[in-house]
Amino acid sequence: MTLHDLAKELNLSIATISRALSRPEDVAPLTRQRVLAAVHRHGYTPNGTTRSLRTQQTRTIGVVVSDIRNAFFAAVVKAIEDEARANGYTVLICNADEDSAKEEAALQLLLDRKVSGVINCSTGANLDLLHTFQKSGAVLVDFDRESGLKNLDTVVVDNRRGAELATEHLVDLGHRDIATVAGPQHLSNARGRLIGFQDTLRKHNIQVKKSFVQYGNFRQESGYQAAQKLHSLRQPPTALFVANVEMAAGVIAFVRDKGVTIPQEISIVSFDDSFWARYMDPPLTVVAQPVETMGKCTMELLLARLRGGKPAQTKVFMPELIVRRSTCSPARSPR
Amino acid sequence: MTLHDLAKELNLSIATISRALSRPEDVAPLTRQRVLAAVHRHGYTPNGTTRSLRTQQTRTIGVVVSDIRNAFFAAVVKAIEDEARANGYTVLICNADEDSAKEEAALQLLLDRKVSGVINCSTGANLDLLHTFQKSGAVLVDFDRESGLKNLDTVVVDNRRGAELATEHLVDLGHRDIATVAGPQHLSNARGRLIGFQDTLRKHNIQVKKSFVQYGNFRQESGYQAAQKLHSLRQPPTALFVANVEMAAGVIAFVRDKGVTIPQEISIVSFDDSFWARYMDPPLTVVAQPVETMGKCTMELLLARLRGGKPAQTKVFMPELIVRRSTCSPARSPR
Repeated sequence: MTLHDLAKELNLSIATISRALSRPEDVAPLTRQRVLAAVHRHGYTPNGTTRSLRTQQTRTIGVVVSDIRNAFFAAVVKAIEDEARANGYTVLICNADEDSAKEEAALQLLLDRKVSGVINCSTGANLDLLHTFQKSGAVLVDFDRESGLKNLDTVVVDNRRGAELATEHLVDLGHRDIATVAGPQHLSNARGRLIGFQDTLRKHNIQVKKSFVQYGNFRQESGYQAAQKLHSLRQPPTALFVANVEMAAGVIAFVRDKGVTIPQEISIVSFDDSFWARYMDPPLTVVAQPVETMGKCTMELLLARLRGGKPAQTKVFMPELIVRRSTCSPARSPR
Repeated sequence: MTLHDLAKELNLSIATISRALSRPEDVAPLTRQRVLAAVHRHGYTPNGTTRSLRTQQTRTIGVVVSDIRNAFFAAVVKAIEDEARANGYTVLICNADEDSAKEEAALQLLLDRKVSGVINCSTGANLDLLHTFQKSGAVLVDFDRESGLKNLDTVVVDNRRGAELATEHLVDLGHRDIATVAGPQHLSNARGRLIGFQDTLRKHNIQVKKSFVQYGNFRQESGYQAAQKLHSLRQPPTALFVANVEMAAGVIAFVRDKGVTIPQEISIVSFDDSFWARYMDPPLTVVAQPVETMGKCTMELLLARLRGGKPAQTKVFMPELIVRRSTCSPARSPR
């Protein structure tokens, strides 16, 4: 494959291709993307005259995870990597640490390092900045959280449906005093989970008490604090839907510290499954996401995008309720 | 800060500094390291004539973790990142996935990306290759496992001592039929843990049965398989020391599948603590490493190395036995 062949295939001049690689800002984003895609597709190696070609052709994917300590993202990264490797790509990972400033720095770093594309689990990075990246021809895919960019490949779970499954389960058991530890509402997944919770209660004519909606930041400590607040209420809830696994860990730590028994005194259902959820005491009822499939799909979308073609897609996966032993009927009869 | 100032400070010619940055292979490794260290120290920005200076000065640290799904490494990365950020560095992470070929690819990728230094949790990468990296002036630090390179800053836990603590605990409880799920013996930490186990048994005049030493690869599945083999023995052990948290997870999955009760039928102590170890049923007795301190120390050593000076150090941290409820005296009396 020579520069000449590339030019022929793309119906572009050699000068344009050269420019797309060496001075991308001088070329229309779409053109640049087509050129990069072709370079990636052919595993094109430069012959020395266009050294910049090599710089561009990294066959490296960047992944910005929201929180590396969250087992959900570790499993996702593993799935992304397996798919990347099968396609000859290597993966660089950055940890946004649930902090939008760190997310922005991570994206900048990866794009400076000329990765082929970035899978981003947004923590709420500035939309203008993301837009600038996108306009410069960077290939981005949203995972788990929607950054707000238009025309972007996106892989998410049906967060609303997951929260409905969890809340329906608690209502079915006879609970009426149901609280939630919600995630930060600038994130699309956290919003979806709160809406699903509220809608389900309303559907069953159960009032959504303001004090029963506590907000965390998707980290353990915030789950602990939210549980503390709910516990201190004059009339604490009998059941709790926690919007992610890290906050659930915090809730469980608090409940254990206080000697509150699960599920007799408080039923708990959490979004996200994990190894320990299955083996903890008692085993945790959860809404599970099809993590491996979602990770693989994300990488597939990114690779398809690098190959050019097709308008951006949003893939929504269905969550599943796994009933274990952290939920039961309330001790006091429903009012 | 100009190139001239740099040259004066380092007592080197401008030509040498230029060469150290643009053609590192032509400069003695130590000289190159001194130059890079100075560039990093001063946050030197080039004036255009020595463009390569900018390329080199990335203020980015690479971390190659052995297994991203292992909670131990997630916690370590978090500690490394916090320390890196406090010093103005960003962190790029690669997952070696307990596979030496992937580790080698990750190291190559990070060094190609001109990171300032790499913290490596070796999975057994080829020593010649590592040596080549080192000779080219790459700043490497070993974490958790010793790669075998000489003159390298290294942060490890006292693996032998940790295994002794775990095994002594089981002997103290009255166990004599004590088995281990050991890690892969080409890794220094796995070797240390096995030696500590064997030495403690010998010290107490307990025979180290060959069938009681099963080997895994530090992954869950291998822990499951090892437990299966031990369970199928005519005389299974009454107690088990598992050499890492991932394999312990596999052991627990097997034991639960079989309905074997912990600790009545089998006492289990694992290397590494984790959130779920504390809340599982029953809470797991573990040998804990001071993860945060170790991660911080690793980054400090790397930064000190970038600043030049001092010969390489090896820091050995002391592990701690945390007795929970997965260990008790054996049901049958010791022979």
